[in-house]
Parts: sequence; structure tokens; C-alpha cells
Amino acid sequence: MSAASFRVGLLGHGTVGSAFASLLAERAVAIEAATGRRPEIAGVLTRSRGSFDDILASSDAVVELMGGIEPAREYALRALESGKSLVTANKQLLSQHGDELFAAARAAGAQLRYEAAVAGVVPVIRVMRESFAGAHIEKVHGIVNGTTNYILTEMARTGASYADALARAQELGYAEADPTEDVNGKDAAAKMAILARLAFHASVSLDDVPFDGIEDITPDDLDYAKEFGLVLKLLGVAERLDGGASVRVFPCFLYGGHPLAAVVGPFNAVTLESEAITEVTLSGPGAGGPQTASAVLGDVVSVMSSPGMELEPVAEVRFVPEEEVESAFYLHLEVQDAPGVLARVAQILGENGVSVKSVLQKGIGENARLVMVMHPVAEGRFTRAVEEISKLDLMRAPPRSIRVIEEEFVG
Amino acid sequence: MSAASFRVGLLGHGTVGSAFASLLAERAVAIEAATGRRPEIAGVLTRSRGSFDDILASSDAVVELMGGIEPAREYALRALESGKSLVTANKQLLSQHGDELFAAARAAGAQLRYEAAVAGVVPVIRVMRESFAGAHIEKVHGIVNGTTNYILTEMARTGASYADALARAQELGYAEADPTEDVNGKDAAAKMAILARLAFHASVSLDDVPFDGIEDITPDDLDYAKEFGLVLKLLGVAERLDGGASVRVFPCFLYGGHPLAAVVGPFNAVTLESEAITEVTLSGPGAGGPQTASAVLGDVVSVMSSPGMELEPVAEVRFVPEEEVESAFYLHLEVQDAPGVLARVAQILGENGVSVKSVLQKGIGENARLVMVMHPVAEGRFTRAVEEISKLDLMRAPPRSIRVIEEEFVG
Repeated sequence: MSAASFRVGLLGHGTVGSAFASLLAERAVAIEAATGRRPEIAGVLTRSRGSFDDILASSDAVVELMGGIEPAREYALRALESGKSLVTANKQLLSQHGDELFAAARAAGAQLRYEAAVAGVVPVIRVMRESFAGAHIEKVHGIVNGTTNYILTEMARTGASYADALARAQELGYAEADPTEDVNGKDAAAKMAILARLAFHASVSLDDVPFDGIEDITPDDLDYAKEFGLVLKLLGVAERLDGGASVRVFPCFLYGGHPLAAVVGPFNAVTLESEAITEVTLSGPGAGGPQTASAVLGDVVSVMSSPGMELEPVAEVRFVPEEEVESAFYLHLEVQDAPGVLARVAQILGENGVSVKSVLQKGIGENARLVMVMHPVAEGRFTRAVEEISKLDLMRAPPRSIRVIEEEFVG
Repeated sequence: MSAASFRVGLLGHGTVGSAFASLLAERAVAIEAATGRRPEIAGVLTRSRGSFDDILASSDAVVELMGGIEPAREYALRALESGKSLVTANKQLLSQHGDELFAAARAAGAQLRYEAAVAGVVPVIRVMRESFAGAHIEKVHGIVNGTTNYILTEMARTGASYADALARAQELGYAEADPTEDVNGKDAAAKMAILARLAFHASVSLDDVPFDGIEDITPDDLDYAKEFGLVLKLLGVAERLDGGASVRVFPCFLYGGHPLAAVVGPFNAVTLESEAITEVTLSGPGAGGPQTASAVLGDVVSVMSSPGMELEPVAEVRFVPEEEVESAFYLHLEVQDAPGVLARVAQILGENGVSVKSVLQKGIGENARLVMVMHPVAEGRFTRAVEEISKLDLMRAPPRSIRVIEEEFVG
């Protein structure tokens, strides 16, 4: 240990932790050239060995790659409270205990960095914290879960069922043995809570983010939607609205020309919008041990070379209820092949103030379907209309609806 | 002027300079909340008013938005030599006098920041400097000139000639009255010199970057290439090669699935590749007063909140001569409609070690053409083959060749 070393306490030594330790060793000389100090591992805490107290005492900064809430939360707080900067990839922790972690960092003047917690190596956290520190961010949206993007890409490409595409994702290592939190949208919701906190300088936690997953998507929906030129993605959206903000995760159709429509396979992409910057999109591999390790190391280098500052939340944000948020919708109805079906459906939509943009009537007899895309409308109105439609005696199955992003690419 | 103010000396008050001054005023309170100091304009130097000496004496940092080489170079050096950090959007200056500017910054311990010099608001400089400070960047390539990307997009979309698409770009403000340095590739070359310096931590200047433009592209080439699934872009490429590096700008075909193929209109996009990160792509509007001003302000905020450090160049880089660099090529031959034409062309290619990937023989009589895509080969070999082919008596016009990027999207 030389006088000019920078000692990193490493908590966790799984895939990411060991990749980080290797990368740190490999890049130590280059980092010393850049920062004047050579980073080295002060100690490693695993489930079976190491003492957190010893590691904390001998470290200049702590890197938490254990995952989960406890004991990661306790260690993170103790590191920050003792004035040590913390680098973490733990999205669960940040999205559920962000307030206390950021408060601890501010109180102690320590840095809390977490690039690897969202979109892997795609540097969206740094870009929001630093490049757009001078901009008022209106909206952040994107594809922040690689597992579901791989599954949806496969379903669209091959016509596979959800179950088959998921099995293939598991074979390739793009989905875990228990994929629940990926496919139900919760993983993406945690990441959107983290992005929304940064975009709005406000307290946002996982509980503030309603989420839907992709488990109920059928190849059928993808087929019909293709005829409208639509591509399905699991989207996270955090946006300022009149009177508040909305942060949500939902499966969603995009028109083919939308830049996020081109993001395929396990890739992630995030678009930042503000009046001053128009829009900037960042994309890259969403996860993977070496990529995550690289993002963690970038944060360590930043901690070494910059004092940083954690911002006070500037405002309470009001979360606009979903029924007040305006969205366009795709509606898939399996109907009886009888006269007047379209008229009755259209009447209910009209009475609820829902306006139809395009209609496709397909099949006959047992296969008759009515597939529609609506103009944007307050979601509560659409939901009420669909409830009424579902009660019509001419429906052969429950209605299926999926949101649609209307906007075209500004390029 | 309060004790907690941060005084910015502004050199230049054109489109970007005035947009910057407005944005600074608008965001001053938010920046004070983030950094503890309120930024304010200490003085403005224009062609007709202001004194550089006075502005320098009263500023904490200097923002240079004059453009051109002199007096921007003199002022930039004097600011850095006096220990004041410098933020600039001046790509000419950085690409032609980077060595002395960075040396002055290092000597004085001052920061030199220049996000706005490359790809407007797309934060490629910060991401390379900071997020990937721990990564070994192998390759940087992308679309770094919005004018030419708009022109090529229009030509492909409408079948317009180069001249007509340029005229339309000028109408819309995407091209200047004198578009020479945009369309001949020099503007992109300056930006690639700046990116290559950062990627390779080496001295790279505009003189090291051979460039080709788009002035000679015909709608014909775009038409034929479409049949191979190819899209034309003006690409900047900086890559490490065995025994050195290559930094170049050239018009180039991409396959439709390549992520840069989807970047249309005046947008810019840059892809960074390294083993650790795989690849990350950043895209957004390439220019525009408000966007550039936002990038400049982001740099000012960084100067206020971080000490930063300018790196020593770590190595002399050997620039590999173009004839040794391997590229794939598209070759468009207007030939006589006579037996044996393909055989003679193929023989010459074969003798030079150039291997054909696909061929399209089209038209008859006066319109006969042979359009081919080659496998990658050392450029010198291809150039020699084309020289020999051009001397064949069965050629009706000089051969036209354009590089092709072979790689497929890893998504």
C-alpha cells in the first residue's frame, strides 16, 4: 500500500464483484496516470469471509455489489455515515431506501454513485447528473430491462409464444432461473424510480411507480399490431405533467420509425428530453458482469477525482393518478361476427370521449376480431369504455388493450 | 456580485453566445442549489465591444464561443496560462492547436472542457473522459456532421440530387451559405481528431485525419446500393489497429440493421467500443444554438463543481497509412455490354487479392453496369485493382467506389 493508493473496500464477490476486482487490477496503472492515485482492493467481504468493520476502517471508499436489501442497506449507511463514498449497483436498495441513503451522503459530505444500477454500462446516470445538470429534464423514457426486450424481440422475429421466448432467453443467459421481477416489470420500475429521482430532483421510490409486465402478451397482438406498423416494447416513462409527474412501466407499442423501436435483443436505451437539449438517446448492452463492472469502475474513478455533491431534493412531486394521464391505446376485441358490432363498440367509445384513430376488422365467424388504435385520451375514460365493452354480449373473450406511443421521431 | 457567485467571462456573442447567456440566467438558481455558487456573466467580449484583459481579470472561468483560430487561440491560451478554466465549442481550435492548449491547461492546473465542440448536446466527451476513464477504448465511430446526414437522408428518401438536397438543407438552416467544410468532410475530420485524442490519450490533430466528402455522391449510387440493403452515411472512424491507429472520415455504406443506419436527418450519433463495455451509442441533435449552449453550460457546471484534471498524452500513436487499413468496398462500373466484361474485371480483382462478396449486373447496351460489394481487403490492393480496371477499354466512365461497413449490429 503506497502513500498514493486509493483503497477500495469491496462488498460482494459474485459475478460482478469478481469482474470488478479483475478490471480494477488491470486498469490500475492507467487510472493512476489519470488521477494521481493507484486504486487497490483494501478487502473483500463475502458471505463466508471478511469483516465489514475491518474493511470499512481500511478503505477510502466502499463498493457494494452484494445486492438485496439487508445487510447491503446497513453497510451502505454505515459507510456513508463514516464519510466514505459509496459506489453501488443495487437498484433494489436505491429504489426502496433512496431517501435515507441520499440523506446520509449529504449529511456526511460523501458521494453516492450508482451508474451500474440502471442500464448497465449505458452512462445515463452520469449524463443526467452532470451533462444535463444545467437542463430542466421534462421526460425520461426507455427500455431499461434487457430480458424483456430480448423476449419481445424474439416473439416478433420468430412468432414464438411468450413461454418459448422466455425459455430461449434462459438458455442464452438473458433471463434468470426465476425471471419474475424482470417479466412483471418490477425491475424496470425500480430503475425508473432511480431515474425519476434524478430527473425531478425529488423523492421517488419504487412504491410510486405502477408497473405492468409482458407475461400476458400473445403473438396474436404482435401480429395484428404489425399491420398498423407497430412494434412492442416494455417501456419505462417518467414525465412531468401539468400539476405533477408520472412514473410508470408498461408494455407499449411504438411506430416503426421511433428510435427505441430499433433497440433489439438484450440492449437497453434511454431517451432524455428537455426543451434546451431536444432529445438525447443513450444505448448499449443492459447488463453482463464485465459491463456492470466497467460502470462501477467509472464511478470509482469519479469518486477518486471529483468531490461531487449530492443534491437536496428541491420539491415534493405530486404523482398524477394513472386515470388522469393521457395515453393512446391499442384495443383488441374478439367479437361475434354479427351486424352492428362495430357500431356498438364505437358508440361506447364515443360516449366516453375516446376517439378512434384506425380500425382493422378481420376474420369471420369464430375468428372475427376488431383491432383499433385510439387517439390519446385520459386513461380513466378509456378504462371505463373498455369495462362497458367487456360487458357486451357480443364479446367472445375479454378485451385486450396495450398503450401506444404516438410521437414520431423528430429526426 | 455576491461572495458565492461564479463569474463567467464570455468571449463571443453570436447565436450560441447569446443562447448561452440566456440559459445561464434562466438556470442560475438551480445551479446554485446544485453547486453552492451562483453563476453570472462577468463580461462579454464581442467584435465591437469589451476588453479581454478586463474580462479575464474579473472571471473565475472563461467561455470561448468566438469560433475560428485567432484571436480565439490567443485568448484561450492566456486564460489557461492564468489558471482560469476554459470552456470552448471551438472544434477548429482544438483540432489544430490541441497540443498547446492541453499543455497550457496541464501546466496551470486549469480545466479545458469542450463538450459542445463535438456532436452538439450529445455528451460523448464527458462519457469518454469520465464514464469510460476505466475502459480501454478500441474504436470510436459515428455520424458527427448533421448537415451531410440531412443531405444523405434527403437523397435516399426522395431521390433528389446532391445539389437539390443541399439547397433544401440550406433553406431549413441545416447547411450554411458556404457549406464547403461540412460537405467535404473537414468539419467531421476536426471532430474525429478531438475524439481520437481522447480515446487514445495521444496527440492527434486535423492533419492526421484524411477525409472525403459527399459532393460526388450520385442518386444512382444510392439506388443500386439499396438493392444490396445498404444505406449511405458520412462516417468518422477512429480505431486502434495492429501497430497503430487510424482516424478517417469517408462516405460509407452500412447495412440496414446497423444502429447508425437508423440515425436520420440532422442527428448525430457516436458509438464507443471497448472490450469491457462492448458498445455504447449516444445520439441526439448535432447542433443548434440552444443545444450547443446547453452543452457549454453543462461544462461550466462541471468546472464549478469538480477540479478535473487534464491527462498527459500517454503515447505517441503511429497512424497506419490508408493503403494498409482493411475495408470492404462497393464498386460501381459503367461498362460496355459485351461478353467477357465480368470475367476481365473479376480477373483483375483476383490478381490483386480482392474477393467479391456480391455482384449485380444491370441494364443493357448504353446502360450496362456492374455493381459489386467486396470482402474487406487492404485498401492499397483495392486501389490498385481499380486503377487497372479504369484502364480497360470496356469502361464507359471512371469507376466509382465507396467503402462499406460489414459488421452487423450485435443486439
